Formats: sequence, C-alpha cells, structure tokens
Amino acid sequence: MTGAEARRAVREGGLSCQTSSLAPGFVQGNLVVLPRDVAGDFLRFCQRNPKPCPIIGMTEPGDPYMPDLGADLDLRTDLPRYRVWRDGELVEEPTDLLSHWRDDLVGFVIGCSFSFEEALLADGLEVRNVAAGVNVSMFRTSIPCAPAGPFAGPVVVTMRPFSPADAIRAIQITSRFPSVHGAPIHIGLPEQIGIRDLSKPDYGDPVEVRAGELPVFWACGVTPQAVIAAARPPFAITHAPGAMLVTDLKNSRLSVL
Amino acid sequence: MTGAEARRAVREGGLSCQTSSLAPGFVQGNLVVLPRDVAGDFLRFCQRNPKPCPIIGMTEPGDPYMPDLGADLDLRTDLPRYRVWRDGELVEEPTDLLSHWRDDLVGFVIGCSFSFEEALLADGLEVRNVAAGVNVSMFRTSIPCAPAGPFAGPVVVTMRPFSPADAIRAIQITSRFPSVHGAPIHIGLPEQIGIRDLSKPDYGDPVEVRAGELPVFWACGVTPQAVIAAARPPFAITHAPGAMLVTDLKNSRLSVL
Repeated sequence: MTGAEARRAVREGGLSCQTSSLAPGFVQGNLVVLPRDVAGDFLRFCQRNPKPCPIIGMTEPGDPYMPDLGADLDLRTDLPRYRVWRDGELVEEPTDLLSHWRDDLVGFVIGCSFSFEEALLADGLEVRNVAAGVNVSMFRTSIPCAPAGPFAGPVVVTMRPFSPADAIRAIQITSRFPSVHGAPIHIGLPEQIGIRDLSKPDYGDPVEVRAGELPVFWACGVTPQAVIAAARPPFAITHAPGAMLVTDLKNSRLSVL
Repeated sequence: MTGAEARRAVREGGLSCQTSSLAPGFVQGNLVVLPRDVAGDFLRFCQRNPKPCPIIGMTEPGDPYMPDLGADLDLRTDLPRYRVWRDGELVEEPTDLLSHWRDDLVGFVIGCSFSFEEALLADGLEVRNVAAGVNVSMFRTSIPCAPAGPFAGPVVVTMRPFSPADAIRAIQITSRFPSVHGAPIHIGLPEQIGIRDLSKPDYGDPVEVRAGELPVFWACGVTPQAVIAAARPPFAITHAPGAMLVTDLKNSRLSVL
C-alpha cells in the first residue's frame, strides 16, 4: 500500500484506528492545527525546538491541502482520528474535520519516529515496542523546551531499550534522520532527565528494559501536544495518538547521508 | 610544528618522550614491525579486526620508508622510543632501530585515538584524560579478537567518561573517523565486557568517572601489542607507549563525512 492508497482508505472511512503498519516506507507525521493568530508563535516554538518539533510541512492559513507531502492530501479527511482542543481541554475526537475547518487555521506536520524505527529495523536491531506490538513508552522530562509566546513546557521523549553495542548503532542510524527527531537526546541514567520509573510512562505503554540494556531517549512529537495542553490556546486540533498523517514522502529520502 | 618538523626533531635527538602534544592536526600512528614470515598473518589479523587495528600504512619487506605517510619518513629513526620484543618478552627500549633493522622486516602503522580526540576537543567536549594531563585508561576486555595464524587475544579498549548527551555527540563525531578506531564499541555497563574496576586500568592511568557520567569504550591500538605479547613471535618491534609516529597526514582528512 502506498501513502496515497493509505490516505484514500482513511478518507473513504475504511480505517479509523492506528496507522503504524500502514504503507511501509512512507513518512507519517504528527498533526498540529492552530488559528493564524498563534500559528506564528508556534512556528517560532518549533524553530527553537527542532529535536522534538521538526516541521516537515506547513499550510497557508485556511488551506487544508499540502501538495508537497501528497498530491491529493487533505488535512480535513486524511487522518483516521483527530483531537479537538478548546482552552487546552480535549473536547472531541472526530474522524474528519469537515465541520471544524476554518479560514484562519494553519496546519503543521511534524516528523514522527515511525520513520527512524523503520531504519533501525532494516538494520536488524530489535525495536522492543514494535516486537512487543505495543505503543512506545513516552515520558515528560525535566528538560524545558525553549519557549515562544504562550508555548512552553517540558520536552517529551520516547524510550527504546538496547544493548550497549546496539545503542551505539541506533545513535548512528538515527543521526541520519534529523527531520524525524534525529539522534537520541539522552542515554542511560533516566533520573538525570527527571524520569523516576521507566515502568510508568506518561504516555503510551510500558516497555521492558532487560538486564544488560540501556534505555535510550529520543525527543518526541508528542511534545507539541503537551505544550498545547499547557498553553491552552482557545482552539487547536491535533491527530489522535497513533492516528498519523500518511504522506507520499519516502522514509529513505529523509536520510541526510 | 608540522608532522615533518616533528619527525626531524625526533630524528635529531631532541625529543625522546611522548608525542601527544606534538604537531597538532597531524595524524599519529601506532607502530608494529614483524618479520616477513609472520607479517602476512598479522595483516590478516588487522583485516579481521579493523576496529582495534585500522592499518593506515604498511611497508614492503626491508623498506623502512613510508612516502605515503611522509616524504622523508624513516621508521628506523622517526619515533622517539621503540620496544624490541623477543619471543613475546620486552628486551630493549632503544631510541632508534639503526642496529635492529633487517631486510625481512615489515612495518605496519595503525591508527591512533589522538586523531579523534582532537575532533572531540574541537567540538567543545571535555576529554578527561587530556584535561587531567594523564594517559587514557586502557582495559583488556572479554571481547575476543578474530584470530589469524598465531595472532589472537582480547580487544583492548580506551575509556573516556562523558555525560549522556556528550556521549551521544562523541559517538557521532568518532563515527566519522573509521580509520582511527571509529565509533565506540561499548557504553556504560563495563562488567558486560569483563571490566571489573574502572579505577584499575590494565594500561595507562586511572581516569575519574564522575556521578552522572557514562564510561564510553573505544577499541584501542594497544590491542596488537597485547596480541604480540601473547603470540610470542621470535622477533617484533613496536613503538613505546605514547611515543608515536607523527605523519604528514592531516587528522581532518581522515574524516569520512
């Protein structure tokens, strides 16, 4: 299945859950939609925090289309499930945005770790959350994002355990993908970034860290959702967790080397 | 001081100690000299163990010159101090090889971590052994080299402590230098590679690992010396620890990216 075929399946209503195994090889992205009056601050926030918030696409105000990411791509219909936020509160989880879209809305698509997980798997590494068929563990850290306007908050990270040698290899591989969070921001010593209990993630599922393994931490695209919840803008839309935007870009084309 | 100037200073006898601060920017190498009848096995050993034994130059039998590494470079006179081994025993530490050289000797120059330490320092990382003015800590590990002929033994590693974020950066930087040991082979969890006490190195000096730091381990050019001592060839010559061959190659030119 291609990216375009995946979006068509979503748009035609046949698919309203997770996208993680859809259209292998194609880039998936996190969605953030904000009114124009705070979109400039959010753009600046992303620019100041490129590790958690790497922008891979952005619309003109009111325009739901993103031809650079997919010929027919429509942000209003092409994700399986959305979250609508008012004043920082989650109020609805619709399967399209046809009744929510407005002329002042700006869409941001932010890189997602699905892209680099594919590269890790292709190299023969075991990605524990994939092997276990669960969501990756995510944690709010004590590392602050650089603030911009109303947007501020902690960096959220994903955690994947590896043997020391595999951790080194994973650092090399993900360094080649700066537009989808790039290299890890931390390794080992979770308490140093404010994580007390690896078995109790703030988002996602617990993932086992075995004896002889190190937890490795990547900046996570859930960071902007946490920041939006904290900034409480009057109106915002995001994707629902795991229900990403599938694009026509190839993961392999995101590699800088 | 250039590489050529450093070799001239050594050759003229003004310098008979360590080379670590000589000729910044120029590649320094480990020296191994073996009789032709075991040189083929040693070459194969290096080929099978490129992380500890990256060959950056090799002579024809009997030829002490290495024009690819330096126009006037003479292996018999251009290192400050040598070690002569008979049957695996250290028998002499001469300051030149004029009375030891033979028509059947083959010289190998093997990459040295001085090259990547320069890149780490240039990036603003603290390299503890450099900051403390001591030799790097080296450890025999439980990781076996791939054997070749009589040559076999454990991989020797250097250890440098870094904060987790700096360790990730150090992995990225040293990955660019495969001809001088490249990326680390291990991080954290020293017991997993047979190292029981980081304060008691097998070679070099103790280097402090502070709270909140991870020990990072690189394959080390001392590995062939340990292997020669174990293989006990009738005759061998190496450099004396820290008294390296200074070449005309630039460290920056060893970077693959």
